[in-house]
Amino acid sequence: MRANDRNGDELRPMKLTTGVNKYAEGSVFIEVGDTKVICTASVEERVPPFMKGQGRGWVTAEYSMLPRATHTRNQREAARGKLGGRTMEIQRLIGRALRSVVNLQALGERTVTLDCDVIQADGGTRTTSITGSFVAMAIAINKIAEQHKLQRFPITDFLASVSVGVVGGQPLLDLNYEEDSKAKVDMNLVMTGGGKFVELQGTGEESPFDRKELDLMLALGEQGILQMIERQKEVLGPIALKIGTGQAGVRA
Amino acid sequence: MRANDRNGDELRPMKLTTGVNKYAEGSVFIEVGDTKVICTASVEERVPPFMKGQGRGWVTAEYSMLPRATHTRNQREAARGKLGGRTMEIQRLIGRALRSVVNLQALGERTVTLDCDVIQADGGTRTTSITGSFVAMAIAINKIAEQHKLQRFPITDFLASVSVGVVGGQPLLDLNYEEDSKAKVDMNLVMTGGGKFVELQGTGEESPFDRKELDLMLALGEQGILQMIERQKEVLGPIALKIGTGQAGVRA
Amino acid sequence: MRANDRNGDELRPMKLTTGVNKYAEGSVFIEVGDTKVICTASVEERVPPFMKGQGRGWVTAEYSMLPRATHTRNQREAARGKLGGRTMEIQRLIGRALRSVVNLQALGERTVTLDCDVIQADGGTRTTSITGSFVAMAIAINKIAEQHKLQRFPITDFLASVSVGVVGGQPLLDLNYEEDSKAKVDMNLVMTGGGKFVELQGTGEESPFDRKELDLMLALGEQGILQMIERQKEVLGPIALKIGTGQAGVRA
Amino acid sequence: MRANDRNGDELRPMKLTTGVNKYAEGSVFIEVGDTKVICTASVEERVPPFMKGQGRGWVTAEYSMLPRATHTRNQREAARGKLGGRTMEIQRLIGRALRSVVNLQALGERTVTLDCDVIQADGGTRTTSITGSFVAMAIAINKIAEQHKLQRFPITDFLASVSVGVVGGQPLLDLNYEEDSKAKVDMNLVMTGGGKFVELQGTGEESPFDRKELDLMLALGEQGILQMIERQKEVLGPIALKIGTGQAGVRA
Amino acid sequence: MRANDRNGDELRPMKLTTGVNKYAEGSVFIEVGDTKVICTASVEERVPPFMKGQGRGWVTAEYSMLPRATHTRNQREAARGKLGGRTMEIQRLIGRALRSVVNLQALGERTVTLDCDVIQADGGTRTTSITGSFVAMAIAINKIAEQHKLQRFPITDFLASVSVGVVGGQPLLDLNYEEDSKAKVDMNLVMTGGGKFVELQGTGEESPFDRKELDLMLALGEQGILQMIERQKEVLGPIALKIGTGQAGVRA
Amino acid sequence: MRANDRNGDELRPMKLTTGVNKYAEGSVFIEVGDTKVICTASVEERVPPFMKGQGRGWVTAEYSMLPRATHTRNQREAARGKLGGRTMEIQRLIGRALRSVVNLQALGERTVTLDCDVIQADGGTRTTSITGSFVAMAIAINKIAEQHKLQRFPITDFLASVSVGVVGGQPLLDLNYEEDSKAKVDMNLVMTGGGKFVELQGTGEESPFDRKELDLMLALGEQGILQMIERQKEVLGPIALKIGTGQAGVRA
Repeated sequence: MRANDRNGDELRPMKLTTGVNKYAEGSVFIEVGDTKVICTASVEERVPPFMKGQGRGWVTAEYSMLPRATHTRNQREAARGKLGGRTMEIQRLIGRALRSVVNLQALGERTVTLDCDVIQADGGTRTTSITGSFVAMAIAINKIAEQHKLQRFPITDFLASVSVGVVGGQPLLDLNYEEDSKAKVDMNLVMTGGGKFVELQGTGEESPFDRKELDLMLALGEQGILQMIERQKEVLGPIALKIGTGQAGVRA
Repeated sequence: MRANDRNGDELRPMKLTTGVNKYAEGSVFIEVGDTKVICTASVEERVPPFMKGQGRGWVTAEYSMLPRATHTRNQREAARGKLGGRTMEIQRLIGRALRSVVNLQALGERTVTLDCDVIQADGGTRTTSITGSFVAMAIAINKIAEQHKLQRFPITDFLASVSVGVVGGQPLLDLNYEEDSKAKVDMNLVMTGGGKFVELQGTGEESPFDRKELDLMLALGEQGILQMIERQKEVLGPIALKIGTGQAGVRA
Repeated sequence: MRANDRNGDELRPMKLTTGVNKYAEGSVFIEVGDTKVICTASVEERVPPFMKGQGRGWVTAEYSMLPRATHTRNQREAARGKLGGRTMEIQRLIGRALRSVVNLQALGERTVTLDCDVIQADGGTRTTSITGSFVAMAIAINKIAEQHKLQRFPITDFLASVSVGVVGGQPLLDLNYEEDSKAKVDMNLVMTGGGKFVELQGTGEESPFDRKELDLMLALGEQGILQMIERQKEVLGPIALKIGTGQAGVRA
Repeated sequence: MRANDRNGDELRPMKLTTGVNKYAEGSVFIEVGDTKVICTASVEERVPPFMKGQGRGWVTAEYSMLPRATHTRNQREAARGKLGGRTMEIQRLIGRALRSVVNLQALGERTVTLDCDVIQADGGTRTTSITGSFVAMAIAINKIAEQHKLQRFPITDFLASVSVGVVGGQPLLDLNYEEDSKAKVDMNLVMTGGGKFVELQGTGEESPFDRKELDLMLALGEQGILQMIERQKEVLGPIALKIGTGQAGVRA
Repeated sequence: MRANDRNGDELRPMKLTTGVNKYAEGSVFIEVGDTKVICTASVEERVPPFMKGQGRGWVTAEYSMLPRATHTRNQREAARGKLGGRTMEIQRLIGRALRSVVNLQALGERTVTLDCDVIQADGGTRTTSITGSFVAMAIAINKIAEQHKLQRFPITDFLASVSVGVVGGQPLLDLNYEEDSKAKVDMNLVMTGGGKFVELQGTGEESPFDRKELDLMLALGEQGILQMIERQKEVLGPIALKIGTGQAGVRA
Repeated sequence: MRANDRNGDELRPMKLTTGVNKYAEGSVFIEVGDTKVICTASVEERVPPFMKGQGRGWVTAEYSMLPRATHTRNQREAARGKLGGRTMEIQRLIGRALRSVVNLQALGERTVTLDCDVIQADGGTRTTSITGSFVAMAIAINKIAEQHKLQRFPITDFLASVSVGVVGGQPLLDLNYEEDSKAKVDMNLVMTGGGKFVELQGTGEESPFDRKELDLMLALGEQGILQMIERQKEVLGPIALKIGTGQAGVRA
């Protein structure tokens, strides 16, 4: 039995609180079970050097865990003087995923930076960061749309992410830390509101998996992500109506 | 007039929420006006190499600001690959201040690390970190005391910190960001419950100050700190009774 | 039409040359089209600190590109003073993939380090590194088996890797650089000789993909990998017979 | 009794030798007891990026100790690859202190960098660096004034610094290393020729101090600093006459 | 007796293979005994900041060893985060040596970067890198000459390098690793086709050497280098005819 | 004509002042013309990890220039976070040179570290560092000999260093900065009291040199070094008598 009598295909309770930072153009505090992440979206009116003069925008992400987000205290990467491989891998994933639903041309020459700071970690910090960041990004982009800086609304679809795995022979949705550490197979899915795959990363380091297990995990993940997107829509309210329409003029 | 009709000798509203992290031995979310800091206290059963074998413990601190804690986004120190001078100065100050009210002999060969992560900054992040860290440290040390690991309760007095400054010729208590950026003189005070000075750092880079201004600022700061310590006592409840007694056996 | 009249489901020519380094316990020069990688396997009679005393071994990998492996010269990571995110991601992938087919218990307390140095890059450097590293690792582990240091042969299955993608609406196997830069979807597969998935990483940054495209790509990749494994068997000769049997005693 | 029969309120012998570097615009070798520091002032006709185009100048400082300035050899910070927190704290203090007596507008868009290299350390290296740097800076600024590059003489007042402390219950002026390591309270004062405070940093890590001790230390420090400023005047000769007058035209 | 019956004044077998990299403007795989180095020459149409606007070009070099180029595996400098002193010394030497035979004015504002990556090391990696780099550079510069970008052919003479040493009282030419580790004196010579010295670095850390030994080593080295230059001429073919003539128009 | 009417074969005035640091086991302030270097020798009763347990000692060196040792201010290597190639090359040279005249067996398991800090640079800082370091090292080693820690006196010969060059067709001894920057050929020599070569580094980056020029430079350098060694003997007094005798018992 899973903690809190959860079924194998059941998400943990998810809570999205917006407006948690008075300076950021968009901000969300996302809680998925005991995993808690602050996502802020910052808009800057410039793009990185390699994109200058192309008339297109950029979306990027940074990810970090507070030292005591975990059972035992971890050394800060700032103190060690370099980012670890895991951090780099995660922040590259978050940025790539978000860009897949943004029309960079429509965004114009500006950068949206998503900062995902994990306050408490209990499994699924990267997927939670993606789900939360999407909401923070939508709020921030809506803010510049309302300032009449955009001709089209650049977000083309919804986006959320969840983990799935095989634990003790059973496929499970949305693993917590304890389940994750016992999983033989571990997969992270990022999907759009339209049900397409954006990222699919499965690893069977402990034990390779076959096609049947893959199919079961994909089915579990898809229904979980669609539930998460429903929650994003509720929280975004009128902003949600602009997504995918391309119409910047709909007032939120 | 100050924001929110505050008087010159009036503190901003202060809120201390304990138990905000399920892993840390002690944790506090401290809000002083719009300055918000998560303080966690982690206990490890070892000391740094330079202290090994002396039978004494160590208390140290790390400080960091989330990138969007401020009006504009700051680059992460982990991404830059080194800690800035301001960060180092602040975390050395926090550690030194806390050690002044801990009997390291009574703590035994263990380390308490305070992590102060600034979620939102509106002036006074270092003083707020000290005031919050004291509470997180007290909870953590009480936890090990309750595990019967200590013969004496090692915290010898209360400790809090506040800033004072001279703005437009007026001495003001507990500056917010806007006031701080206009201040000609800026002073941070750390004091004990017994009314003694632990740290006193005044700087008149914009304009040197005289003895009279110093005396006014010290008086303002002292009464502000004593109010803060009253709030710490309320929040700590029965733990507060152990502080300064040396008696580990009083049950919280 | 693809370069060199290649069909969509056709691998590039692959060449494996063993024994290219006189010091390494195992070494392979692998050429897949114009992508060329030197893979060396080094055996050391110790494990990393976090694994000491568990009686188990470790397999890890490092990946690097020579500065002029690509169209334009890249700055060396040693000169920049840090590893990039892409490098870290790739070397973590290679290590994880190889460990999935090694019985670390049977390896004993020793480390096998695979160094993958890309001499020339024309797409698929990470998948080529995995396919080549498997051979170098098998040679190195066989060497210690022949020195009677192992009771069981620790390699449990074959392992190879290939990329698949969707270019201009067509699913293609084993993309070269030009195809890769036009691909809307890009997927790297790592599979065992038994046809199971070890790693599956698909990304549709440019354009999300649906389930049908995923199924086509998985089928393409699987048959490509099985062909590669046939080539590994030829090159490994008698060593191939030991893989998966657990019998260290079969003489190569 | 203090070393060399010194009274509690007595400074160590202080010697200022100017012109010790043939390239620097200003240079001083300052000896305070056995503490010996080379201070050079370098003038560059540009300002840091964050100050460009404001028509104002900048004064900054760097501080370092030779490896064998102390009883045992310290590792070089260049070899360790980063500046320690203590070094950063000290060089920020020196820069801030000097800027408090410079009219940056009158200096124009140029930077004066003070390099304080401690040849031998016997307590008070930061205060000695400030006292010596002031003289080096005055010589350098006078040099550009004599080149008719300035309309007003930008130094507005004299500046010196000393440490005070409480050792064995006694307030002492200008602590040497041995006294400093026994001090319960340690305070560094920076004051102007006009008797105002520029920096005041007191720390009672070992034992908090009360208001009475603070008042005694401030009195001791003030008279010590005023003596030091007398010595600066002697050494600066005619340059001293320009300080505080704003008149660039007085010929040195 | 030396390995492979080599006489004291005999070079190891040397093999130069050109065109080993399809992207680089010039490339050579040089084998001197078991020492094997890939040298690529990359041409970029810009110069380093310190040379901008002078109408002159720049030639520079970088040197690296693959981790398993040696008997035991070495840590990568990229992983350690900094270049070692030996690497820096060698790459400065290679760049300096090559520049001595290039007319930087005739090269125009472009940079030629030589990358020397040691695949396998058996003594003499720095001298082998110089000898190979000269050929790669000549091919690259000829390529731009053929594109009519140069008015004069900028290479003024041939250049090669060899080591000499004193082992067991005997002067030996072209030391392999085993000889090098037993040598009391170790000298690297770089000479031009005209028989002049470009670099001469002798070290007698184990045992100082006298004038007579120096003279013997210089004679050995000179004849070895002249043989190497003959081999460079053969490999370069028609390009060799342009060297030293200054005539860019001779067609290769 | 050279500055100060110096002849081509004439050294600059050289001054050696010993005992300039009260903590170091040996210290010298060496002035050669306007080049000024503080050399301290620190003795530690341990050796680097790679030498442990062999019963032999180690001699090593570090070299640094104060930021304003030169015409214009250089950035500190500690601030840049890494040692430059030139610094590494020089400190490796100094260490190697000194070790050539020390019997490491006789030194026992201890390390002598020479710190060469250039206070003012006017050409020849590396050669001046070697000449000064020899004296500081001799004083330090004599100190431990007098503590009866050594059975044999480990210094086997004198050692000094000078630069020679060809300027305007003329061979010159001991170049100052201005001469050095005009030199076509630049050579640094390190020789023993017995007239043997320890290091010989000649570079003709601007213009290769022939055998005749080499011979002239070697002759100039030899007589310069022998003069320097006479000065070392005067300064060392009775310590000089122990050098080369192996007798630790001669009292200085």
